[in-house]
Amino acid sequence: MRRVAIIGVGTTKFGELWDKSLRDIGIEAGIKAIEDANISGSDIDAIYVGNMSAGNFINQEHVAALIADYAGLAKRHIPATRVESACASGGLALRHGFMAVASGIHDIVVVGGAEKMTDVSGADATATLIMAADQEWEAFVGMTFPGLYAMMAVRHMYEYGTTKEQLAMVAVKNHRNGALNPNAQFRREIDLDTALNAPMIAYPLGLYDCSPVTDGASAVVLAPLEMAKKYTDTPIEIIGSGQASESLALHDREDICTMKSTVFAAREAYKMAGIMPSDVDVAEVHDCFTINEIIATEDLGFFKKGEGGKAVEEGLTERDGEIPVNTSGGLKAKGHPVGATGIAQAVEIVYQLRGEAGKRQVDGAEIGLAHNVGGTGATAVVHIMRRVN
Amino acid sequence: MRRVAIIGVGTTKFGELWDKSLRDIGIEAGIKAIEDANISGSDIDAIYVGNMSAGNFINQEHVAALIADYAGLAKRHIPATRVESACASGGLALRHGFMAVASGIHDIVVVGGAEKMTDVSGADATATLIMAADQEWEAFVGMTFPGLYAMMAVRHMYEYGTTKEQLAMVAVKNHRNGALNPNAQFRREIDLDTALNAPMIAYPLGLYDCSPVTDGASAVVLAPLEMAKKYTDTPIEIIGSGQASESLALHDREDICTMKSTVFAAREAYKMAGIMPSDVDVAEVHDCFTINEIIATEDLGFFKKGEGGKAVEEGLTERDGEIPVNTSGGLKAKGHPVGATGIAQAVEIVYQLRGEAGKRQVDGAEIGLAHNVGGTGATAVVHIMRRVN
Repeated sequence: MRRVAIIGVGTTKFGELWDKSLRDIGIEAGIKAIEDANISGSDIDAIYVGNMSAGNFINQEHVAALIADYAGLAKRHIPATRVESACASGGLALRHGFMAVASGIHDIVVVGGAEKMTDVSGADATATLIMAADQEWEAFVGMTFPGLYAMMAVRHMYEYGTTKEQLAMVAVKNHRNGALNPNAQFRREIDLDTALNAPMIAYPLGLYDCSPVTDGASAVVLAPLEMAKKYTDTPIEIIGSGQASESLALHDREDICTMKSTVFAAREAYKMAGIMPSDVDVAEVHDCFTINEIIATEDLGFFKKGEGGKAVEEGLTERDGEIPVNTSGGLKAKGHPVGATGIAQAVEIVYQLRGEAGKRQVDGAEIGLAHNVGGTGATAVVHIMRRVN
Repeated sequence: MRRVAIIGVGTTKFGELWDKSLRDIGIEAGIKAIEDANISGSDIDAIYVGNMSAGNFINQEHVAALIADYAGLAKRHIPATRVESACASGGLALRHGFMAVASGIHDIVVVGGAEKMTDVSGADATATLIMAADQEWEAFVGMTFPGLYAMMAVRHMYEYGTTKEQLAMVAVKNHRNGALNPNAQFRREIDLDTALNAPMIAYPLGLYDCSPVTDGASAVVLAPLEMAKKYTDTPIEIIGSGQASESLALHDREDICTMKSTVFAAREAYKMAGIMPSDVDVAEVHDCFTINEIIATEDLGFFKKGEGGKAVEEGLTERDGEIPVNTSGGLKAKGHPVGATGIAQAVEIVYQLRGEAGKRQVDGAEIGLAHNVGGTGATAVVHIMRRVN
């Protein structure tokens, strides 16, 4: 297996992009990544696209072919592959681009994630998102994603004493980070009272415990590490990749305070990278709801099970904390265009490891981790990246 | 890269399976393939699932996680990946399973394709299928898939003198083959008059020029060739794999009588296999409409461009002809559960190369080819398989 580096990144602004279509944002992110990598379209051997549900959002399947076409790459007939695992589609696309380069099948691969969730022609966002859960056992009976994560939150509070204040502190931190991210959907800070007193969505999750509905796209360019120096002075190597599954419905799990998919994907990624959780300098984790940032930081091994809430309260996940989490603003403040999220996380880690994260820069970050979840954790994908000195 | 073999295959019956859900048929095909391969669930390292649009058909995304869950594999947290490229989703899943084993990332990989197109909770079949075309330039203005392929047929008739009778002969041949396939949706022969006098769908395509709406699932088990003999006496090696793209909308192509995606995917597969088109003993090609079998047999190099219609008329694609095409009955008679089709094609080729195709067996078949198309050819995937002696 060859070593693989990210040699370019690009992203659209995240938000309600009323004047742009899925193809517009997909191409915009791709072109930015290509320019950043100093390559041209003719260098590209294949593309991967992470997208959850363009079929429902905009009545468009066959999305990878669409993006290849509008990027001009279909004229060269390169392979274009869409992968889908709900909100982990982006991370899964990154993993498959990584596998394609690592195995020697392709050299230069562009991996994009894109989702157009507003201004849609198909089903609305909540109706579409619940298709990531078990249709027959959860969606059909009226369950929504805030409802599913609310059950996890209540149980975590019961088992470990996690508080509604600690959940709100995740939102406050991530809004503080998002305010410093020029591409974030919400670039404003909120205070704890605002978060705590927001309208209730599904107890204990209030409005600010939930990530928003977002349009956006992000892309990365992958190359064999041995070729990377030809294109960039700051290649970021992918040193670990892990993917794991878990039961689709929550009721089939022994414990809903942990996502075993995260645990197993992280184990694989750490092993491949040859590092420990404590070696990670900066992490983007899947905070679709605030409770999931807490659960994720435990399952990734940053904190012991049950201590994620306390860790937030103690500031350990702040930018200057022990393990800075979601410096981009996370899904909460940066926004959560579902199929793009996994790639956007990688983009932020690349910015951090290159030292290009501006006011949200973590000093001296050398190793970063991206953690992407599908549904309530039926899929998890973890990538670990390192600055190449 | 390691050599890769198919060590087991399985399929459901194809048809209107009112009493079975997507998860039912996905598991049924998978279990049959696993039993055929003499492996147990604990041997499986990863699964790939080809599915076009469960989101629209049955309001279920995250399909690979669903199948892993119901197969009991999520208890072992193995990676479960869905790929989508419209009606080429099955072929694309096979290619990614192949890549995962060839690269050494996984050993035993089950690749399934499944689609539940009747008895659905979401959009109907025609409305869903057109999502494989360009939403903004084709679907939005009312185009349907029969309409798109009708334009290709009319042009092929104009350019090369292909006749409506030749199109009908494809249907007659494939129904004759399907009548011998116990898993086919239509197990009855039709005569030329029936095909020619059928209700018109989109000129020149009548009812029998169009593949049906079908429920069904198929699966194959992949292993490194060096391990294959441990499980089976009749491993079928995948000796070539190719994937290519083309513009999504028909209007962007120089020539709509050819699919350059097929040409490029086939070129890659032939090169990897080190064979010529004339070396192929049996082929399953993507006859979603009869015109596409004719175009495919030309683009795959079996006949010169423009001579596909005449070849059918001369019986060259019959079971005892120069190059037997669609011995399974093809999409036309076997049925076309869109995401399953690419896997079902591979299953038929495996039966043929093992000598297990019963009354539709092609004598002495040693090399087989499967050709899977997405949309009107924005994606094409070609696999070449060989009996290991």
